[in-house]
Amino acid sequence: MITNDTIVALSTPAGAGAIGVIRLSGKDAITITNSVFSGKDLSAQPTHTLHFGLIKDGDIVIDEVVVSLFVGPKSYTKENVVEISCHGSNYIIQQIITLLIKKGATAAKPGEFTLRAFLNGAMDLSQAEAVADLISSDSQAAHSVAMNQLRGGFSTELNVLRDQLIHFASMIELELDFSEEDVEFANRDQLQELINKITIVLNKLIRSFELGNVIKEGINTVIAGRPNAGKSTLLNALLNEDRAIVSEIAGTTRDTIEEVLNINGINFRLIDTAGIREATDAIEAIGVEKTMQKISQSAVLVYLFDVVNLTSTEIKEDIASLYRPGMAFVAVANKIDLSYQDRVKELELSPDIQFIAISAKENNHVEDLKELLYETAVGDKLSENHTMVTNIRHVEALRKTQEALASVSEGLINPVTSDFLAMDIKQALYYLGEITGKVTTDDLLDNIFSKFCIGK
Amino acid sequence: MITNDTIVALSTPAGAGAIGVIRLSGKDAITITNSVFSGKDLSAQPTHTLHFGLIKDGDIVIDEVVVSLFVGPKSYTKENVVEISCHGSNYIIQQIITLLIKKGATAAKPGEFTLRAFLNGAMDLSQAEAVADLISSDSQAAHSVAMNQLRGGFSTELNVLRDQLIHFASMIELELDFSEEDVEFANRDQLQELINKITIVLNKLIRSFELGNVIKEGINTVIAGRPNAGKSTLLNALLNEDRAIVSEIAGTTRDTIEEVLNINGINFRLIDTAGIREATDAIEAIGVEKTMQKISQSAVLVYLFDVVNLTSTEIKEDIASLYRPGMAFVAVANKIDLSYQDRVKELELSPDIQFIAISAKENNHVEDLKELLYETAVGDKLSENHTMVTNIRHVEALRKTQEALASVSEGLINPVTSDFLAMDIKQALYYLGEITGKVTTDDLLDNIFSKFCIGK
Repeated sequence: MITNDTIVALSTPAGAGAIGVIRLSGKDAITITNSVFSGKDLSAQPTHTLHFGLIKDGDIVIDEVVVSLFVGPKSYTKENVVEISCHGSNYIIQQIITLLIKKGATAAKPGEFTLRAFLNGAMDLSQAEAVADLISSDSQAAHSVAMNQLRGGFSTELNVLRDQLIHFASMIELELDFSEEDVEFANRDQLQELINKITIVLNKLIRSFELGNVIKEGINTVIAGRPNAGKSTLLNALLNEDRAIVSEIAGTTRDTIEEVLNINGINFRLIDTAGIREATDAIEAIGVEKTMQKISQSAVLVYLFDVVNLTSTEIKEDIASLYRPGMAFVAVANKIDLSYQDRVKELELSPDIQFIAISAKENNHVEDLKELLYETAVGDKLSENHTMVTNIRHVEALRKTQEALASVSEGLINPVTSDFLAMDIKQALYYLGEITGKVTTDDLLDNIFSKFCIGK
Repeated sequence: MITNDTIVALSTPAGAGAIGVIRLSGKDAITITNSVFSGKDLSAQPTHTLHFGLIKDGDIVIDEVVVSLFVGPKSYTKENVVEISCHGSNYIIQQIITLLIKKGATAAKPGEFTLRAFLNGAMDLSQAEAVADLISSDSQAAHSVAMNQLRGGFSTELNVLRDQLIHFASMIELELDFSEEDVEFANRDQLQELINKITIVLNKLIRSFELGNVIKEGINTVIAGRPNAGKSTLLNALLNEDRAIVSEIAGTTRDTIEEVLNINGINFRLIDTAGIREATDAIEAIGVEKTMQKISQSAVLVYLFDVVNLTSTEIKEDIASLYRPGMAFVAVANKIDLSYQDRVKELELSPDIQFIAISAKENNHVEDLKELLYETAVGDKLSENHTMVTNIRHVEALRKTQEALASVSEGLINPVTSDFLAMDIKQALYYLGEITGKVTTDDLLDNIFSKFCIGK
């Protein structure tokens, strides 16, 4: 990784706006800006100051700008950083960036500012990844998890585990140095105890991914049911708008419709579907097939049924065909405005199935349904577990750590020599280190930062 | 105009980016920001300084930000200005703006920051308008004219004229005070001389609008000619790309095609047209009609002809039907690769018609044609006239000034009483003052600033 050069990029979104901000980072950031800035000598100014002046290419005034100076190491990247706030014209922005490149700057690659922040120790790798998550966060929960990760909550938890393991690793390394004397510096019982403790934390973190991932991506919530059960009406009631075409004719909805509903800061991706039944024509057949596909990908399945016009046997058949143990399943009796009562107990619902009766049309108990969806998908898992894994890379590294620790355990139960133990512990440390970037490869960094936007 | 409140808006374009900048202006800008900022006491910090910290809504961290402080009057609006540079997430930006509004800020209307800059005397009205022109400038010339206007070149020129007129106005006002004594404080010959001088400048400015406007909007350049003259091939050669569908079949181009070609920093809007001839079908008839319409709106008309396959009589007929005296007309002999020579002198071209021979297909002399287009449309008008009117509002005010001054002249030749002279001079001053905003109405300001983007 070459970081001797000074990089430059537009840090604000492209497009016309009041202002655009061009960012430079590197040892020559101030010198290069100074060479095109007229107003005062920027190199003589203290850090964290703002300076009004002109950007000039020879005699030509390109723009009136405000320059922000951050003298390294007191900056985002720990290098000298300059931000040029100019008028938000693409022409001007291009002219300024071209000029800065002519004066010695290099066009920044995606994520290169944050990469430098990581390489210079301003943040660890999981924090750097949180920057990208933060930018793309679009719900309160996704924002909160990313912010916790950015502020080091996740790294702290991992580093505690890692430090404890490192202690044992060094003890065992020491045993290797004295291998002829057959001493044990590392207490095997304590090591096993530590591994158990770490495994509990790892399990908790790995389990948190299930929720962490859906918090980041949104919870796939499929609404299924027979034609005319009122699925589209329910969707509209949930979203408070006329998103889906509602009609009295069974089979109106052919395409799957996706909308995002925010419940208590969590995004639920509501997926309305074609009715589940024998299709009467080819286009409908495609719709039904799509429905079954969507159901298989759902995190929560809402089965909506017409409590008036369906027999209990029909409802029970539907549930039997849709429900699989372990599934987050919510049965919703619709059209209670027409009278339902005693019908529900005939359904003999499994205790694992959540049940609620609503009227989508009259908007009765729709808010209760929202709360039930939140309870089913999230419950108290969010509050009990503030540190959450949202990144597939992290969960994979955690799983590999778990495997390596299982090998250590195995080696303690069926005793192996210290060098085998040392190897497995090192392996665990390696995978833990990958998450926070204590261990990295160029490929890994490339892979992470190439997904960033330019200018970050 | 109420400017007691503190306004807030996103100043960078919407959309995902590395950072977003939220701007506040008003007397409480620093206090309001301080109430949600944790890190240090912003109200105790000097102007033009940068501060890293957290934006918090109660205990919830919304973002890690950098705050720029501009203590009034040392700011864009001359009020207290704060810029909050946050992560470029729409969720975060909305959260911060909502929080600031909850703490007492008001959502800014389009252009409201620049409006305040104008109302507080940081810039005059023509400079404020130049801000919008600068943001939308997309060529070197448009940028240069807007920058000159922003930096006050235009206002300076007008203010000199206005100050001289004010001198005479006050002299004549004085005469009104002494009207019973029939004295003349204002020398009528000097006044006439001044009016002549001002009229010359006004004429120059009004004339500059023709070029100023096309510099801002681009120069409409219609390429006309008979079918198969090679118009589409020429367009492609000019643009160095295969924009138009080129074929050997006459009548291929039916829709008018518009492309922007930048020659020496000026945007030329190239408009390719259907061939001019008797249409053989209805669709072609529409094409030919469109051609004639485009020709009537062109700033430069390029008549392209096939020098080989057309007789001199045919070419002369075409030119006679297209050319009108005073028109910027460029006759281009195409297909010189096939041999042309002596043919050209037979055309007996008017000296007002520019002529060049090219081969669009072989790309011969196409660069020379570009230079000729620039010469014809712009020539040395750009360098001789750095101050340029680009705004229809300005040119109208200048014309009205001119009319009022003509009345003054008229009143000097056929002497009228001082009060009539005074009225006409005041009228002239009023219109001149409208340009720089020394005279304004709320409607005028509304009209100007409502076209700005929010956050500027």
